[in-house]
Order: sequence, then structure tokens, then C-alpha cells
Amino acid sequence: MGFGVARSSGRDGRPVYRQIAERIRDDIASGRLAEGDQLPTIRALAQELRVNRDTVALAYEELAAAGLVEATVGRGSFVRSRGAAAPAPAWEAPLAPAVLQVLDLERARPRYGFAEDAVPLHSLLPDPALYPVAGFRRALARVMADQGAELLRYGVPQGHPGLREELAARLRAAGVEVEADELALTQGASEGIQLALRLFGATGDAVAVEEPTYHHVLTALTALGLRPVPIPLGEEGADLSALERALARPDVKLFYTMPTFHNPMGTSTSLAHRRALLELAARARKPVIEDAYEMDLRYTGKPLPSLAALDRTGGVSQLLSFSKSLFPGLRVGAILARGRARDGVIALKQTTDLGGAFVLQAALAEFLRRGDYDRHLARVRRVLLGRRDALLEALAREMPQGTHWTTPEGGLQLWVELPGGIDTAELLPEAGRAGVLFAPGFQFRHDGRVSSGMRLSIALADEAAIRRGVAALAKVVRERLARGGRSSREQSVNV
Amino acid sequence: MGFGVARSSGRDGRPVYRQIAERIRDDIASGRLAEGDQLPTIRALAQELRVNRDTVALAYEELAAAGLVEATVGRGSFVRSRGAAAPAPAWEAPLAPAVLQVLDLERARPRYGFAEDAVPLHSLLPDPALYPVAGFRRALARVMADQGAELLRYGVPQGHPGLREELAARLRAAGVEVEADELALTQGASEGIQLALRLFGATGDAVAVEEPTYHHVLTALTALGLRPVPIPLGEEGADLSALERALARPDVKLFYTMPTFHNPMGTSTSLAHRRALLELAARARKPVIEDAYEMDLRYTGKPLPSLAALDRTGGVSQLLSFSKSLFPGLRVGAILARGRARDGVIALKQTTDLGGAFVLQAALAEFLRRGDYDRHLARVRRVLLGRRDALLEALAREMPQGTHWTTPEGGLQLWVELPGGIDTAELLPEAGRAGVLFAPGFQFRHDGRVSSGMRLSIALADEAAIRRGVAALAKVVRERLARGGRSSREQSVNV
Repeated sequence: MGFGVARSSGRDGRPVYRQIAERIRDDIASGRLAEGDQLPTIRALAQELRVNRDTVALAYEELAAAGLVEATVGRGSFVRSRGAAAPAPAWEAPLAPAVLQVLDLERARPRYGFAEDAVPLHSLLPDPALYPVAGFRRALARVMADQGAELLRYGVPQGHPGLREELAARLRAAGVEVEADELALTQGASEGIQLALRLFGATGDAVAVEEPTYHHVLTALTALGLRPVPIPLGEEGADLSALERALARPDVKLFYTMPTFHNPMGTSTSLAHRRALLELAARARKPVIEDAYEMDLRYTGKPLPSLAALDRTGGVSQLLSFSKSLFPGLRVGAILARGRARDGVIALKQTTDLGGAFVLQAALAEFLRRGDYDRHLARVRRVLLGRRDALLEALAREMPQGTHWTTPEGGLQLWVELPGGIDTAELLPEAGRAGVLFAPGFQFRHDGRVSSGMRLSIALADEAAIRRGVAALAKVVRERLARGGRSSREQSVNV
Repeated sequence: MGFGVARSSGRDGRPVYRQIAERIRDDIASGRLAEGDQLPTIRALAQELRVNRDTVALAYEELAAAGLVEATVGRGSFVRSRGAAAPAPAWEAPLAPAVLQVLDLERARPRYGFAEDAVPLHSLLPDPALYPVAGFRRALARVMADQGAELLRYGVPQGHPGLREELAARLRAAGVEVEADELALTQGASEGIQLALRLFGATGDAVAVEEPTYHHVLTALTALGLRPVPIPLGEEGADLSALERALARPDVKLFYTMPTFHNPMGTSTSLAHRRALLELAARARKPVIEDAYEMDLRYTGKPLPSLAALDRTGGVSQLLSFSKSLFPGLRVGAILARGRARDGVIALKQTTDLGGAFVLQAALAEFLRRGDYDRHLARVRRVLLGRRDALLEALAREMPQGTHWTTPEGGLQLWVELPGGIDTAELLPEAGRAGVLFAPGFQFRHDGRVSSGMRLSIALADEAAIRRGVAALAKVVRERLARGGRSSREQSVNV
């Protein structure tokens, strides 16, 4: 094969695996590689290019995800047949600019598929071993038997009234003054984010977000033609003077925040910080979107009132989710919105998809009503506390000096900052090969710049696996430090 | 109460019921009407304002839908308590301009709730009496038993592979060359519309649509800051010279069309029209969105290849749905997209909600695989043919001379054009009181201007009900013609 690959240089450079993938992509497009052609083995290409085998594996994984190559166990990777049937596009209409940006963001996201046996400390997928499948099956069967055809009609855009009542009651128990009528059901909190962004922001507007923040928010706002305005996140939460300056800008239309069990940080803000934040937002008359996606997962410490509970202005819209506390497959979340914002959310939901599936919403309401969810939470909180302690102990025992981490009181993740300027995106392939995966920090930054931080998750790995994973992580970090720390992304070489 | 209501004048005027509703809304906002206050009875207010009781009922319905008033059976209507608990918004952040426009469009939509016992010829909700509930319950129970926790994880944005395979096989049987990989599952065709619009259009761009067209498309594009460019729809389909001119405009990014069983017209275009349309779009290099939402509901006549089946350029994205042919409650549809458009759709779906619920997608795949869907279709097609014939016969027998209608070969709806310049929006309250509801034509026009057309549906009414409904319709139309036809929306009066 033989072609030049430039190691990426600085923050704008593309990772080496992307360069390899793009070169192969070009070869397929130009016909130099035809349908059914075999690609070099990972080992051979790695040798030829003098790069890690993981780097080549990542490139092949990206091409497979794009449907361009196909791996056959024991035979190797082949340029994929798109089916003789599929017409080759004679021309392609240009996609909207925001869509192209999103495709770029998606392509730059870390890939994990190359190390399937590694300890999955990267993933926020709640552990399927803990899913209360039998209880949910019963709930689903009951509502189908009782309501059948009623649940198969169009629902209403706002969502199933029974589930909204259950959620409102739970929120009131958590100190939020709310009626079922002020809730709209969404496809997970992720659609809540989407609707909240569209509610207040139009193309060209800006949105204040914590830095680091949930990467999905960055993609969602890019897709809507919105710009992120990063607010530095300290130990105490978002820097309030920076936030005040941002909200004073006319182009900044809202603030998206995760005060409880922040993703990726795992931290929660104090009561004083919450009050100050609300006062500041009310002064600026800018709405606050409070993502409370892990609210039900506190396993230690004293519960704090949410922003929605403290708010007296109606300026807080709160996002709820069952994806982390129960399981994500139902795609059921909710948004609490007041006044005109409520009307706007419902209208937007109507224009998006006419409303979600009543079947699943009704089944979830039944599951809540019977107490199954609370029983599940009690169990999950116990498990998570054990896993968090195992993780904290392992980090203290294994990690080299100069490593720092946060100590969450709930939720699924914490943040680790490595010493020596290690680029965690660069470290990932090595770590995966050594038996552990983590979520590298660059993706949580609005500009994707190099980060020496990583998110570790206790969602999917049990205590023993967590210990194994941290031991493997500590080993590759020490090796990297021994080699001098700073990553090859700082240099530029030709191979 | 006593206040002036101006009858709306010309195309920009608001309907009388909206004026009444807005006046009451203002009174609530200003405190002239307080929580718990009783509104005048419908009869009393109608007398006071010298308007139809239906007009007042519509106003009250709109207020109830907005959560402002509450009707209590036998007691009357009251200003609703928002719950002492709910904080009154101290200030409200401005909603995005597109959201305000959507709220206006939603408010202007016809209301039907005032005449619950009328024959529902307005609704495209498929008849719940025909839902194969038992078969679907079995499919749902089977996939939950077999796959359980697997279905409750995050799915993938593209949707359940099993269902995509089933759909691809069905499409290939209908002459569309397609792989499962070129399909993405959506929340009904409605979300397919949303994704297709976002795929090619950015705020400020324009979209060519037939006039009349599906009203949801008009709302969806408004919500995205897009502008409709109406292409007149004749007997033969969209006017191709108008389409050619529109597609030549750089700001027009795509064409949305329903060549088969058009909503609201019920018509289908010829093979020659389809070929000419495709050639024209390919010349202009503009993508075509083919909404095939009722494709499975042909009950007579020869099936025609869809645009997606005829296309050789990859420029057609086709939308599929089960909402009309099975039941809408699953919120499962699909979009067929080629090349970069496919990648863009999946990325957009990911940014919107990370993907739909695998549980329902897997159950639907099982339902298809077992042949339950095909058995259901055979039954539904028989029923619909009977209903269509009953409707055509009743129209021919009952309607006054000068009435015209279309003759569909499938789907749920046909179009009726009344003589004498009758405004069908104005006629609706009278018709509802006489025992029949229809979908007035104005809402299918991009500017909502007065229409003497209406959509009649065979979805929800059986043959006997259809006959009763048409008899009632003919009666109010004859009465209106006897009074001179043209509606009061042409005048302006003070009451």
C-alpha cells in the first residue's frame, strides 16, 4: 500500500488513525481499492507505517462504522460491497452546513470497539446485569392487557398523563413545586436538551455551557447552528463571574448546567452556589436548563435542593431521565418548563414527532406506581456506592503521584487528571490494549483541544473489574511518564 | 362580560372564536378574571355576542387546551387553578422567533373537540377497532422474553437492525433497490420529515412543497426557520414548470412530495409524471423527499413504482410509516437515504435523541416476520375499499351540484371542493353541530388563506357512519348555499 501519514501537530491536527482512514476512504472513492478487495492485515499495515497496531485497528473500525469495509473473522478486512442493487449516487446534494459540522464532530469522537475485552470504564451505559427486566415485563404486559388499543392510538405531544402525574409527585417530594401539566415527556433527556435549545436559541445564537460539559450538548447545539460559550468549571461549580459576563451578552440566550453529579466531572455544587447562580440568571433574565439526568442516583451525602426546587422565577427548565437510573432503552425522559416555555416545548415536540410512544410511557408509570422503581434504586445505589469506593481506593493505591480525581456522592462517573501533560486521547489505544478503556477529556471541551483529563465510569464494571482496570491504567500512565509524558501529538513526523 | 369582537376580515383576519379566546386570555392575565371564577355559559355568551354557540365552544376549547380554563361536567367552565404550589413566572425569557410562529400556527388550527359525537370524517387516526392488539401483544411479549435486557440498553441511532432488514426486504419487493444499511428508523414519518428538512435546509432556506400539502410539514419547516415555496397541485400532480422554476432558485434546497395517496388530496401521480419529476430534480441537483406514509394502503388499481424505485441518482429520500397502515402508537417510521444523506440522517438522529426504543422496533420486526402485518393489511384494505365506495356513493347521492371530489385508489382520505365560494373553516362549527366533522382546507395552504375545499377521511368512521356524515354535510352545505354561500369572513362587523 505504502503512503505517507503525517502525525498530527498541535490542536488542529487530525489523529494518525483518522489520516489512515481518510487515505483508505480516498482510495475507495477513486477506485484504487474496489469492492471485495482485501485490506492489508492490521499487523502488516502497522509495520509498514511504523505506527501502533491499535492505530490501524482504530482506522479500520472507523471505516467499518462508515460502512466502507467489512471485517470477517479469521479472514481479514475487505472493501465492502454496497450490494450490487444499490444505485451509486450520480450526484449528491450538499448537506446543510450544520450537518457537515456534526459529521466532523462524530468522526472525531473516540472509538472503543477495538478493545472489546477491556474493562469498560469509559461507558455510562448502566449495567444490564442490574436491569429489573422481569418487573418491567410485568408492567408492560399489564398495561397492554388493560389498555391495549388505547395505547396504540396517537398519544399527545405532551406525553402520557399518568406518567406525568407520577413524575410530578416525585418532584414535589424532592421539593419542586410542579403540576403534571408543567411536564412534557421526551425521548430521554437528550431530546429534552434538543427541545430546550430550540426553545430559546435560533441559528447564530450562543449558549453558555460549563467547560468541560456533556459532549452530546456540544453536538446538539452545533447541529442547530448554535455556538457554545464555555464557562470554566472549578471545584465549586461554574465560575460565576464568567457566567455573569456571558449572560450579559445579547447573543447568549440560555445556560445549560448540571449542578448535580456533573458529566463528566461527577461533582455537585453547593447550596450557596446554586442560589448565587439563580440570582445571577434572574438578573440577566436568561433561562437556565438544569440537566438532572442522574438525580435519582445519590448514594451518599446529604441531598441538595435542585435549581428547579430553589427557583422562584420560573426561569429554570429541568431535564429528567430514566436512562441512567433504570435503563436507557425506553427512551423516556421529561422536561419541566413553566409558562410560555411549557407551551413552546409542547409545540416543538408536536412539530418534531407528534409525541412519544404511550405504550412505554404507560408501562413506566405502572412500574413507578407499583414501587418497582424505588426498590430498584435502593439496590442500584448500594451497588454504585460499593463500586465508587472500589474505584477511589484503587486510584489512591495505584495511580502515580500528581494524579488528581473528584469524589462524587452519586451518579456514574468521576474525573481524573493525569500528571505530566499526557494527552488522554493519545493514551487510549495503549490503555485499551492493556485492558482498560476510559473517556478521554478532549471531547468534553467546546473546541476539542488536547486534555490530560479523563472520565471514569462505574456504570458497567463491577468492583473486581474496576480494580483490574485501574491497575492497567496506572501501568500505562507510569510507562508513558517514564517515556517523558507529553504525547506525540505535539510533534510532526513522516512515516 | 360584554366586549366587542370584530369578525375577521379577509385572509389576515383572525377567526371570531380566536378573538373571544384571546379576550378571555387577556382578562385572566390582567386579573379581571381570577382563579376559580366561573365563565359565562356557552349559551349566554353566544347570545350576548350574537355568535354561534359553536364559536364560543371553540373559544373555550382553545382556552382549555392552553390550560387556562377547566370544564366541569354539569357545572360549567372555570378559570383554572394553576395549583397554589406553582410559582408564577416573575419574568419570561423570550422564545426563539420560530417557536412563536409555530405557536401561532398551532393556535390557528381547527378545533374538533366541541362536537364529540359527530361523525369523524376529519381524522386520519386509523380505526382502533381494527388494531391487531392481540397479535402485537404476543410479538412484544416474545421479544421481551427472548431478548429482555438487550432491548433495554441504548440502541443505535440508526435503529434496530432486525426491523431495518424486514423493511429493506419489503421495499425490494416493491422494486426499490435498497440495503438495510440505507434505512434509519424514525419516530413515525413525522420525525423523518424533521430530519430530512434539517439534512438539506438551514435557517433562511426555502423548501418546495405541493399546495395543498400535509399541514405538519408546514409547521415543521416553520419551526426550523425554513420557508415554504408552494407548487400548485393539479389533477396530474405538482405543476412541473412551477417546480422547475422553484428548484432553479438557489435558496430552494429540496422538494417534499407525496406522489401516492396525497395528503390531503388522496390522488396519485402517473408514471410519466414521476419520471419527469425525477429528471427535473436531477437536472436541478435538488433532493426529493418522497413521503410514502400510506404506501401499504392501496386497495384498488395498479401499483405504481415509487419515486425511490424509479430513482437512479440517489437523490430521493423516502419516508415510511406504520402510523396509518397499522397503528400510530408505536411511533415507528423510517427514512431511506443514500450516500452522504444517509450518514447525515444518522448523525442528526444521534444529536436529537440518540435513537429510538429498540423494544418497540424489535416487536414490530417480529410482527412483520410472522406475517401478522400482511394479514392485517389484507383485512384493512378490504374495509377501506368498502368505506371509500360508501363515501363516493354518498357524495354522488347527497352533495349539491357543483361539488367536486377526488377518487383515491388507496389511503385514508379524499378531497372535496364545495361550490359557491363557501369557506370550509367557517362551515365547520355548523357541520359539527349537524353531526359531521371534516378537515377544512385552509390549514393545508402555506399561507392559511380561505379555502372552499375539505379533506374527508374514511379512517375512523364505518360505512353507516360515513353515509350519515355525508348526509349531514350535504344538509349544511345546501343551507349555506341557500343563504348565499360566501362566508362572513369576507365582512367585518362589531357585535
